[in-house]
Amino acid sequence: MSNHRTETDSMGAIEVASDAYWGAQTQRSIQNFPIGIARFKWQPPMIRALGILKKAAAQANAELGELPADVAKSIIQAADEVIAGKLDQHFPLVVFQTGSGTQSNMNANEVISNRAIEIAGGVMGSKAPVHPNDHVNRGQSSNDTFPTAMHIAVVEQLYLHLFPAVERLRNTLAAKSAEYKGIVKTGRTHLQDATPITLGQEIGAWVAQLDFALHAVKQALPGVYDLAIGGTAVGTGLNAHPRFGDLAAHCIAQITGYPFRSAQNKFFALSAHDALVNLSASLRTLAGAMMKIANDVRWLASGPRCGIGELNIPENEPGSSIMPGKVNPTQCEAMTMVCVQVFGNDAAVAFAGSQGNFQLNVYKPVMVHNVLESIELLGDTCNAFHDQCAVGIEPNLPKLKENLDKNLMLVTALNRHIGYDKAASIAKKAHKEGTSLREAALATGYVTAEQYEQWIIPIDMTHS
Amino acid sequence: MSNHRTETDSMGAIEVASDAYWGAQTQRSIQNFPIGIARFKWQPPMIRALGILKKAAAQANAELGELPADVAKSIIQAADEVIAGKLDQHFPLVVFQTGSGTQSNMNANEVISNRAIEIAGGVMGSKAPVHPNDHVNRGQSSNDTFPTAMHIAVVEQLYLHLFPAVERLRNTLAAKSAEYKGIVKTGRTHLQDATPITLGQEIGAWVAQLDFALHAVKQALPGVYDLAIGGTAVGTGLNAHPRFGDLAAHCIAQITGYPFRSAQNKFFALSAHDALVNLSASLRTLAGAMMKIANDVRWLASGPRCGIGELNIPENEPGSSIMPGKVNPTQCEAMTMVCVQVFGNDAAVAFAGSQGNFQLNVYKPVMVHNVLESIELLGDTCNAFHDQCAVGIEPNLPKLKENLDKNLMLVTALNRHIGYDKAASIAKKAHKEGTSLREAALATGYVTAEQYEQWIIPIDMTHS
Amino acid sequence: MSNHRTETDSMGAIEVASDAYWGAQTQRSIQNFPIGIARFKWQPPMIRALGILKKAAAQANAELGELPADVAKSIIQAADEVIAGKLDQHFPLVVFQTGSGTQSNMNANEVISNRAIEIAGGVMGSKAPVHPNDHVNRGQSSNDTFPTAMHIAVVEQLYLHLFPAVERLRNTLAAKSAEYKGIVKTGRTHLQDATPITLGQEIGAWVAQLDFALHAVKQALPGVYDLAIGGTAVGTGLNAHPRFGDLAAHCIAQITGYPFRSAQNKFFALSAHDALVNLSASLRTLAGAMMKIANDVRWLASGPRCGIGELNIPENEPGSSIMPGKVNPTQCEAMTMVCVQVFGNDAAVAFAGSQGNFQLNVYKPVMVHNVLESIELLGDTCNAFHDQCAVGIEPNLPKLKENLDKNLMLVTALNRHIGYDKAASIAKKAHKEGTSLREAALATGYVTAEQYEQWIIPIDMTHS
Amino acid sequence: MSNHRTETDSMGAIEVASDAYWGAQTQRSIQNFPIGIARFKWQPPMIRALGILKKAAAQANAELGELPADVAKSIIQAADEVIAGKLDQHFPLVVFQTGSGTQSNMNANEVISNRAIEIAGGVMGSKAPVHPNDHVNRGQSSNDTFPTAMHIAVVEQLYLHLFPAVERLRNTLAAKSAEYKGIVKTGRTHLQDATPITLGQEIGAWVAQLDFALHAVKQALPGVYDLAIGGTAVGTGLNAHPRFGDLAAHCIAQITGYPFRSAQNKFFALSAHDALVNLSASLRTLAGAMMKIANDVRWLASGPRCGIGELNIPENEPGSSIMPGKVNPTQCEAMTMVCVQVFGNDAAVAFAGSQGNFQLNVYKPVMVHNVLESIELLGDTCNAFHDQCAVGIEPNLPKLKENLDKNLMLVTALNRHIGYDKAASIAKKAHKEGTSLREAALATGYVTAEQYEQWIIPIDMTHS
Repeated sequence: MSNHRTETDSMGAIEVASDAYWGAQTQRSIQNFPIGIARFKWQPPMIRALGILKKAAAQANAELGELPADVAKSIIQAADEVIAGKLDQHFPLVVFQTGSGTQSNMNANEVISNRAIEIAGGVMGSKAPVHPNDHVNRGQSSNDTFPTAMHIAVVEQLYLHLFPAVERLRNTLAAKSAEYKGIVKTGRTHLQDATPITLGQEIGAWVAQLDFALHAVKQALPGVYDLAIGGTAVGTGLNAHPRFGDLAAHCIAQITGYPFRSAQNKFFALSAHDALVNLSASLRTLAGAMMKIANDVRWLASGPRCGIGELNIPENEPGSSIMPGKVNPTQCEAMTMVCVQVFGNDAAVAFAGSQGNFQLNVYKPVMVHNVLESIELLGDTCNAFHDQCAVGIEPNLPKLKENLDKNLMLVTALNRHIGYDKAASIAKKAHKEGTSLREAALATGYVTAEQYEQWIIPIDMTHS
Repeated sequence: MSNHRTETDSMGAIEVASDAYWGAQTQRSIQNFPIGIARFKWQPPMIRALGILKKAAAQANAELGELPADVAKSIIQAADEVIAGKLDQHFPLVVFQTGSGTQSNMNANEVISNRAIEIAGGVMGSKAPVHPNDHVNRGQSSNDTFPTAMHIAVVEQLYLHLFPAVERLRNTLAAKSAEYKGIVKTGRTHLQDATPITLGQEIGAWVAQLDFALHAVKQALPGVYDLAIGGTAVGTGLNAHPRFGDLAAHCIAQITGYPFRSAQNKFFALSAHDALVNLSASLRTLAGAMMKIANDVRWLASGPRCGIGELNIPENEPGSSIMPGKVNPTQCEAMTMVCVQVFGNDAAVAFAGSQGNFQLNVYKPVMVHNVLESIELLGDTCNAFHDQCAVGIEPNLPKLKENLDKNLMLVTALNRHIGYDKAASIAKKAHKEGTSLREAALATGYVTAEQYEQWIIPIDMTHS
Repeated sequence: MSNHRTETDSMGAIEVASDAYWGAQTQRSIQNFPIGIARFKWQPPMIRALGILKKAAAQANAELGELPADVAKSIIQAADEVIAGKLDQHFPLVVFQTGSGTQSNMNANEVISNRAIEIAGGVMGSKAPVHPNDHVNRGQSSNDTFPTAMHIAVVEQLYLHLFPAVERLRNTLAAKSAEYKGIVKTGRTHLQDATPITLGQEIGAWVAQLDFALHAVKQALPGVYDLAIGGTAVGTGLNAHPRFGDLAAHCIAQITGYPFRSAQNKFFALSAHDALVNLSASLRTLAGAMMKIANDVRWLASGPRCGIGELNIPENEPGSSIMPGKVNPTQCEAMTMVCVQVFGNDAAVAFAGSQGNFQLNVYKPVMVHNVLESIELLGDTCNAFHDQCAVGIEPNLPKLKENLDKNLMLVTALNRHIGYDKAASIAKKAHKEGTSLREAALATGYVTAEQYEQWIIPIDMTHS
Repeated sequence: MSNHRTETDSMGAIEVASDAYWGAQTQRSIQNFPIGIARFKWQPPMIRALGILKKAAAQANAELGELPADVAKSIIQAADEVIAGKLDQHFPLVVFQTGSGTQSNMNANEVISNRAIEIAGGVMGSKAPVHPNDHVNRGQSSNDTFPTAMHIAVVEQLYLHLFPAVERLRNTLAAKSAEYKGIVKTGRTHLQDATPITLGQEIGAWVAQLDFALHAVKQALPGVYDLAIGGTAVGTGLNAHPRFGDLAAHCIAQITGYPFRSAQNKFFALSAHDALVNLSASLRTLAGAMMKIANDVRWLASGPRCGIGELNIPENEPGSSIMPGKVNPTQCEAMTMVCVQVFGNDAAVAFAGSQGNFQLNVYKPVMVHNVLESIELLGDTCNAFHDQCAVGIEPNLPKLKENLDKNLMLVTALNRHIGYDKAASIAKKAHKEGTSLREAALATGYVTAEQYEQWIIPIDMTHS
C-alpha cells in the first residue's frame, strides 16, 4: 500500500503524500520554490484569510446559483476547518513563489476540494464531487482572490493583535502621565537642560504620539476594506457572475465582522496595492513613535549613577553579574530593534508596490508578508514592553529633585521680577562658580531668600 | 564710508553687510554652517511661511496687549514684505544648521525687526523700536515657531502646487479613459497576454490610482494643520500669553485660508513630527502610483516596431538623429526619476522623524526640506508630463488591433459554446502552428466562420 | 517525579524543563521576549557560530592556562555537538531580545555547561564541574562574543550558501552567452528599438553584473574577518588574558578554515558594526543586479504573441488552464520579490548600524538576522532560478529574426555608403509607409537589392 | 537687431538667446523639463566632467585620424573653458530630463561647438566648422558619454572635497585621542555605567570608524574608474573607432590624474551603474559612522548640569539668551541631518540602480545627482564640524572625575583580591545606601583604605 497518491493538473500527474490534502499545483510549487523554507511558509493569518475568502465565495456562488447547494455546503465545511486552523499543516508553500500568489490560491483550492471530497466520501485527487478550479475557485482568479485574502489577513491582525497591544500600552502610559502630573522635572532640548516640565507632561507626549499613530493606522483602513474579489484575471470580472464580487465581499464582511466591500475599480485593485503601501507607512509612523518613546525611556533610566537616572525601570534579567543597579533597558532594546525592522519591511513594501505592470502587480506575496510581519512584531513588542517595562516605570524622585534643583534654567522665572539682565547675571554667576542658582541669586543681592522661594516655583513654570 | 554695520547678539558684536537686513545670529550661521550653500538655502515657500507666522504672532500679541499697536503694525508691514517674497535675498541660511531651525527663526526675527526699524526711521541693528527677540519673537521660541512654519509651508505648497498639478493630470487621463472606452485591447498579466480589456479601463486604473493617492495625501493634512505655536521652548508655553497659541493659529488660518489650529498637545508638537512623516509617506504613495503609470506608458509605447507599440506619445525632442519613430519616452523617464527621488526623500524624513529626544526633535530643517522638495518635484513632473506627454497620448489603432487579433486568450469566449476542452485544443493548435485563433478554430471544425464572428466578440469580454 | 529542575542565576531560582539543556537566563528570556516566536528563533547558522566561538574560546583559554584541561575538553566536546547541530532545539530564543545578544550568549553558555556537566556525570543546573560564566564564558562578555558569532555565521553562510549559488547561475549564463554569441538581435534603449547586438552580448552583460556584485561582496569580507573577541565588556579586554583575543580568533580561523583575525580596535568592534553594514550593502548591489536580470528575462520572454517574445523560458507549472503558451515568468517573480526583501533588510541593517551609543551598539541581533536572511534568500532564489529557469532559457529564433528584420535601426549601416541624409530618408519612408527597410531602400533607388544584402549585415554592427 | 538667433536640430528650428552658447536641443530641454529648476540645475562638478570628457574625446579622435587637427584643437580649447568653469552659465539644464542624460550631453556638444565656432570666427548655430554631433560628439552617444562624465565627476569630488575633509577630521580626532589617552572615564554600555575606559580610547573608536569608512569608500573606487566611453549607443561601439574607448579613457586619466580606464564590458557599463550604487553605499557607511560620532559628542556634552557633561564643546552661537552654559550641539545636529539626507540619497540611488532595462539604465542623472550631493554634504559637514566643533572638544575634567568616582563598576577590580561575592556585596551596599564605593568598601571591613587606594586603580582597568 503506497503512502502516495497521484494528483493531476493541466501539466499532468504528480505524486503527493497520501496524508496531504494538497494537490498537484501545490506539490509543484514545493519543488519549484525551495526559497526560505524554514521561515517563509505562510503563517496562520494568511491561511485563515484564504479560508474565509473561499467560504464567502462558496456562499456567494450558491446564492447566485453558480454552485449546487451540496457542493457549496461541503466547501463551506472544509473552509471552516481552514479558518479554524485545523489544516494549517496542509499549507506548505512559501512567500517567494509566483508574484500573484497563484500557488497559494491553488493550495487553498486543492486542500478545500480534497477535504470536501473526503467529507463527501469521495476519492481525494479525483476532483469529484468538488473540483478545485470549477467549484472552489469558481468565478475567481488568483489575481483577485490573493489580494482579497491579503486584505482580510491584514485587517484581522490589526484588530486582533496590534490595536489591543498598542492601546494597552497607551492606557498604561496615560495612567502614568496622570499619576505623575505633579512631579516637576528638568525639561531637555538639544539634549541640554531646559525649563521645567512635569513628568506627566513628558509621558503625555508619548501617549499623544501613540494616539496619533494609532489614528493614522486606522485612517489607512478604508483602502484595505476594498476587496479585489470579482475582478478575476484582469479586472473585468470575466467568468464571474456580475454580482459575485459584491456578494462575496458582503459575505466576507459578515464572516469577519469588519466592513469589507467590493472595490470600486477592480483594475486598480489588481494592478496596484497602494492601500497596503499606505498602511505599511502608517505602521512605520507607529514604529517611529515607539523608537522615540523607547529611546526616551532608556535615556531617562540611564545610569545608575553616571547617566540621567530620572526613571527606574524593572530589572527583568541579570544585567551584569557584579554590578547591582545596572539595569539594562532590554525591553527598550527589543522594541527599537523591532522598529528598525518595521522600517526595513516598509521599504520593501513600498518598493514592491511601485513595480506593477499593466493589469497586475506581481509582488503580492512579499507585500503582505512584510505588512503582516510588521503587525506581528509591533504588537508583540508592545505587549512585552508593556508587561516587562512600562507597568514598572517609576520616577527616581531624589534624582529628579537633584536634577531640577541644579538646573539653572529655573532662572527664567526671575525675569518678570528683576528683569532679564539681572536674571541672566545670576545664572551666569552660578554657571561660572558652579554653585546653585539659589546661592548665586542670594549672593548677588538681587533677591532675598524669601523672594527666591516665592518666585522660583518650578511647578508654575510647567503651566500644568 | 563703510559698507558694513555692526550687529550684536548675546555673544557680542559682528559685522554685517550694510545692505543686508539680517543681524548677528544670521551672520554667525552663515559663517558656522557653510554646508551645501549652492543648493540648500531655504526656498521661497519656507521664507514665506516664516513671514506668515511672524505676522500672525504680531497680530495675536497685539490683540492680547503683549505688543504696542505701532510696533505690531510695523512688524506686520515688514512681515507682509517677507510674505510677498520681496526680502527673499535676506534669507541666506541653509537647511543644515541647528536642528530646531533656530537660526532661520532668528533670521526672520532679525530681517523683520530691521526692516520695521527702517520703516520707522530708526537705525538698523539698534533693535529699537522693534526688537528681534522681545517684539518679533514675542511669546515664541524657535522650538515652536519653526515647526509651525514647516506646516504652513507644506500645506501651502500642497494646495498651490501639487494638488492642481496632479488633478490636471488626473483629469486629462480621465478624459482619455472616457474617450477610449470603446477600444478593446490585449490585457496583460505577468507581462503575458491575457483576456481583453478596453484602453479606457487600462487608463481608468491609472486615474483610480491617482485618486487614491491624492485622497491619501489629503487625509494626511489634518495632522499638518495642527500647529506647535504656543508651546514655546519645551511645550509648556512658558513666557507666552496663555491664549497666544490659539490666537496665533487662528490668525494663520485667516491669512492663509487653510484650517490651521493650535495643536492639542504641544509637547508632542515639538518633540515629534509624525504628521510630516505621515504626509511624506502619502507623497511616496503618490510617487509609487506615478511610477506605475509612467512605466505603463513607456512600455505600451515601446517600439516602434519591436516592442508593444500600442500607444503613441508625443515626440518632443530628437530621439535618434537617424531613426524616425524612435520616440524616447523622456517625460516618463523624468517622472520615474522624480519618483525614486521622492522615495529617497521619504526615507530621510522617516529616519529623521524617529530620532527625537525628550522635548525636541532636532531634525526639523531636514524634514521639511525633503517634504517640500518632494512636493515641488512631484508637482513639476506632473505638469511637464501632462503638457509634453499625457495630452498627446494616442492609441496606435493598427497595432492594438493586430495584438488583439493574435491574442490566443480570446479563446476563452468559446468555452461556454463548445466546452473547455475543445476550446483549449483550438488554442493549443494555434499556438503550436503559429496560426491565428480563427484559422485554428475553423480548421478543427468545432466552429464555423459565422459562429466564430458571432461568439468571439472581444468587447463583450471586457464587461465594459 | 518532576519534569522540571531548578536553575539559578544572580536573580535567583527558576524552573526549567528537565529535558532542556538551557538554564536560568535563557528561561527568563523566553518569558520576557515573546516577540515573533514563530519565525524569529535563531536559525542553525547563528547557533553553530556560537558553538564555534565557545569551542575556540575554550581552546584558547586552555592553552593560556585559564581553564583546566578537563574542563576545556568537556566544553569542547559539548560545543562540537552545538556545531554539529545536535542541540539546535535547545536554542529557543528569538532575535528581539537584549540588543547585545546577551541572552543568546548565555543560552550557549548554559547549554554547553549543562551538556558538559552531563558528559562529566554531574548534575545539570549545579554549574559544576563546568560553570556557564566562569568556564564557558571565561574571558568573554556578550559584548564581544555575540558580534564575533555574528561574523562567523555571516562568513560561513556566504561561502557555504551564497557564493556557490551565485557562481552556478553566473556560469550557466556565461555558457549561454558563449552559446548565443552568433545570434543577432534588436538592441533596446529607452525601451525603444536600437542598433543590433548579439544575444551573447546581452546575456554577457548579466554575467558581468553578477561578477561585479560577487566581487563587491567578497571585497566586503575583510571587515567581517575582524573579530571582536578579546574586547570583553567595553573593548578594554578587562578580565580576559591579554593574548586571549588573538588566540581565540586564531582558533576560529582554524575551525572554520576562513581567515578570521582579532580586530585591531576592539572599541570600534563593539560600538559599531560597519563591516556588516557594508556587507549588507554589497548584498543589495547583488539584489539590484538580479532585479535587472530577472526583469530582462521576463520582458524578453513576454508574450507569447503580444509582447517581445524573444526568449523562451521553461514552463514549470500551469500558468493559465486554457491558455497554452502563457508561461508566467514565476521564477523571475520570486527572484524580484527576494530582491525587494533584500533592499528592505538592508535598510534595516543600515539604520540599526547608525544607532550605536558610546561603547556599544545594541542592535546586534537585528543586524545579523537581516544579513543572514538576505544571504539565505539570495542563495535560495539563485538556485531555484538557475534550476527552474536559467538552464532552460532558449532563444525564440523566428521571433528574434522577425524583430531584427523589421528593426529600422539597421539603416545605420547605410550611412557610410550613401550618406546620412539618404539613409535617413529611407528609414523615414519605411516608418511612414509601414514597410520593411529593405522595401523602402529599394523603392528609393539609393541601393540595389545586391547592395542591400552586402551592406546591411547586422552581425557586423554588433562588433562581436 | 534681434537678441535671439535660430538654432536647428533634426526637429527643426528654434530660437535661442543670442548670448547663449547652447543650441536647439538644449533649448528644447529647457522648455520640456521645467522640473526643480531652482535647485536642480547641474552643478560645476558635472559640467566640468563633461568638459573633460569632450576634451579627451577630441584628443582621442584626433590621434585616431577621426577629426581634423584644427577642429580638434578648437574643440579642446572650448572644452578647456568648460573645464575651467568659464561657461557654467551655459549649462541651464536640470537633473530631471531624459534618463540617459541625452540633453546634457547635447548641451555640452552645443556649447563647445558654438564656442569653438566663435573662436574660429564662424557663425554660431551654423554648425560649421565645428559640428556638435559630427565633431564634438564624434564616436560617442549620450549612452556612453553621460555615464563616463558621471564617473569623472564623482571621482574628482571624492578626491578634491570629501577625502581631505574626512581626513582632516580624522586627524584632529586622532590627535585628541592621543592627547587624552591618560584620562580615565566611565565606560557605558546599554547607556548604563560600565567599566572604565580612557577618553583616548573612546575617541580612538571614532577614528577607527572613520578609517574604516574611508577605506570602504576608496575600495569602491575601482568600479568607478571603469568608463563606459567607447560603447556608444548600445555597448557595441558602433560608429566609434575600435581604439577610441581605450584612448579616450587614457586621455581622461591624463587630464584628471586619476587611473580611469576603459570598462571591460561596455554593455554592463551602459545598462547598470552598480559601481555607483556600491559607492553610494560606502557613503552611507560613512554617514552611519558620523551619526554615531556626532551622537556620542552631543550626549557626552549634554548638560550643562543635568546630563552627562563629560565633554565641553565650543559655543558658536547663542543657544539660549538667558541660559549661560546651554551650549547647543549645533554642529552635531547639522552633521546628523546630513547623515539622514545621505541615507535618503542612497536609497534613491539603489532604487534607481535596480531599474535598468535591456541595454540601458535610464536613471543616470538622478543617480549621479544623489551621489554628488552626498559627497558635497558629507564633505561640507565634516569641514564645519571640524572647524566649529571637533578642534574645540575639551574634556570636562571635574565632571569626568566625579562620574568615575561614583561609578560602582570599579568594584570589578576587587574581584581578584577579595573574591567575587564580597566584591558584589560591597557594590550592592553602595548602591542601596547611595554611598560611594569606597565608603561601602571600608564599611564592610573587607578592605582597608590603603588597600582600596592600591587596588582600585581605574587606569589599570582600561588596559591602555
